[in-house]
Amino acid sequence: MRVAVLGLGSVGRGLLQMLAAKPELGFVLTAVADSSSARIDPDGLDPVAILDDKCATGRCGPSGLSAADIIASGAYDVLVELTPTNAMTGEPALTHIRGALEQGRHVVTSNKGPIATDYSGLAALADDAGVALRFEATVGGAIPVFHAIRDGLAGNRFSSITGVLNGTCNYILTRMDDEGLTYEQALAEARELGYAEADPTYDVRGIDAAIKLVILANTCWGLGATLDDVAITGIDGLTVDALRLAADQDCTIRLIGEAAPAENLLRVAPRVLPRNHPLVIEGTLNAIMLSTDMAGEVTLMGKGAGSVETASALVGDLIAIRDRYAGCG
Amino acid sequence: MRVAVLGLGSVGRGLLQMLAAKPELGFVLTAVADSSSARIDPDGLDPVAILDDKCATGRCGPSGLSAADIIASGAYDVLVELTPTNAMTGEPALTHIRGALEQGRHVVTSNKGPIATDYSGLAALADDAGVALRFEATVGGAIPVFHAIRDGLAGNRFSSITGVLNGTCNYILTRMDDEGLTYEQALAEARELGYAEADPTYDVRGIDAAIKLVILANTCWGLGATLDDVAITGIDGLTVDALRLAADQDCTIRLIGEAAPAENLLRVAPRVLPRNHPLVIEGTLNAIMLSTDMAGEVTLMGKGAGSVETASALVGDLIAIRDRYAGCG
Repeated sequence: MRVAVLGLGSVGRGLLQMLAAKPELGFVLTAVADSSSARIDPDGLDPVAILDDKCATGRCGPSGLSAADIIASGAYDVLVELTPTNAMTGEPALTHIRGALEQGRHVVTSNKGPIATDYSGLAALADDAGVALRFEATVGGAIPVFHAIRDGLAGNRFSSITGVLNGTCNYILTRMDDEGLTYEQALAEARELGYAEADPTYDVRGIDAAIKLVILANTCWGLGATLDDVAITGIDGLTVDALRLAADQDCTIRLIGEAAPAENLLRVAPRVLPRNHPLVIEGTLNAIMLSTDMAGEVTLMGKGAGSVETASALVGDLIAIRDRYAGCG
Repeated sequence: MRVAVLGLGSVGRGLLQMLAAKPELGFVLTAVADSSSARIDPDGLDPVAILDDKCATGRCGPSGLSAADIIASGAYDVLVELTPTNAMTGEPALTHIRGALEQGRHVVTSNKGPIATDYSGLAALADDAGVALRFEATVGGAIPVFHAIRDGLAGNRFSSITGVLNGTCNYILTRMDDEGLTYEQALAEARELGYAEADPTYDVRGIDAAIKLVILANTCWGLGATLDDVAITGIDGLTVDALRLAADQDCTIRLIGEAAPAENLLRVAPRVLPRNHPLVIEGTLNAIMLSTDMAGEVTLMGKGAGSVETASALVGDLIAIRDRYAGCG
């Protein structure tokens, strides 16, 4: 199966490393693009050589080529879209993904922007073309939550999805609780360790978690919700006193995303939870609890970020496409 | 897709209830057997009428028919084997499953016996016939762990599987820890609540957990292990003092199954774990932690038993078969 990769940030480089490390998977890299260059070879590119070039020159190929040329070339079976996320417009990923789907190519992405802004439009395009659109890596990093909703728990009706969807916030809250740090101290520590970005607004105000909640809700129930539909409270106003009050009752506080269509609920907010609650997890982990009619509550937890962890989700999607479409010859 | 169900205990009745409740799944019940009778109708049986008959008469059909007649009839696409488990011989399920596979029929089962005693033989039969053998319901009840290993985390290499695989033991340990009950008191309580059987040997000595560990290890790594290969320590010798010592260090004790082929490790034993460890779960829950090369550690938790919960796993397997084999027309 021929794979084109758009975007060579941390996730893209992680995926190329895994393609190089696991040739037995049978994926052939035929095209790759970063923000200023691209390379296409229908006979296959060497992922290691691409990574070396990128490291040495900052580019993966000649600057005369771009992502648009790759899409137009059609020299791939699956487009893996890994360009930087723009949660408001979904671009440039939205254009890339539409182009590939219109050409009858499968798409795998870790990019939350296009899925949060136009899931139903993209899903319709994929349906019309008879191809797959998969995005396991957009939510919960390495946790195979969409596989669980779609396959593992197939046949169940889902009444709610509740989760710790942002590892940065979970790290900050864990440290405030464990060590009595103030929000500012814990945030500074998270920055030092690389768990928080220089501008942490997106994470600590709950926006990242809300985008993931929208993706979960739209794909699970076809809600057609947008970020504006989510009631969002971040953790940036949270005091040590609030955590102490919770601790007095053997509870703690976590930033929880909750979706429950029957209750018209779409919310991200700090919640007081008993310490033995399944969503009370430590550090940068993510966890997602699915409430179902047959299986009851099933919780999945794991690493919510990381380049190789995200590559795991991308590879899982690639294999699902390979197995589903290869079987029918 | 035509479905034959062998066994009308709690799990079989739960499955029939779900088939009746979810006609949209498109499964047609064409045959059903209990220990003393059977019924076959290629045009489809009404699951509700079967359940009513079973309740009123103790039988599902005429005593002149049996499970063997159903298998010989071939009037089904998938055999769902739910007869009582015999972990030593695997029978009668082993004969049923072999018969169906040899006829080129798919098999779904919740029966640990045949999968623990002859997984490789059955898998080879299924391969030869080009049909599916699925057993999500054998381990972890409603938790889609085999889906995760096979699909969600596809492409990963697994270094270890660690889990709380027996809800009865977990309930007893939770109660000893929370309330300071002795082992005998907690066991008596579990019996009253229906969480432990009249003869709890199988559970409390770790045998049930060890069988599940063998199934996980054999399917994940193709080990060909048997119950004799597992080092087993149960919870029946555990004292309140041991739990108190653990509690002094902010730890507790859980019965943990561990498989790690590189370390030649296949063990079920009580383990001291920090209270915030992902496998420290409460009550009758089960949890399974998969350690992988790309995704890191992914933990799944949920209800380890229950008739509708187990039906969820069976339905997930049925849908996987329907989608995989229907797509190729």
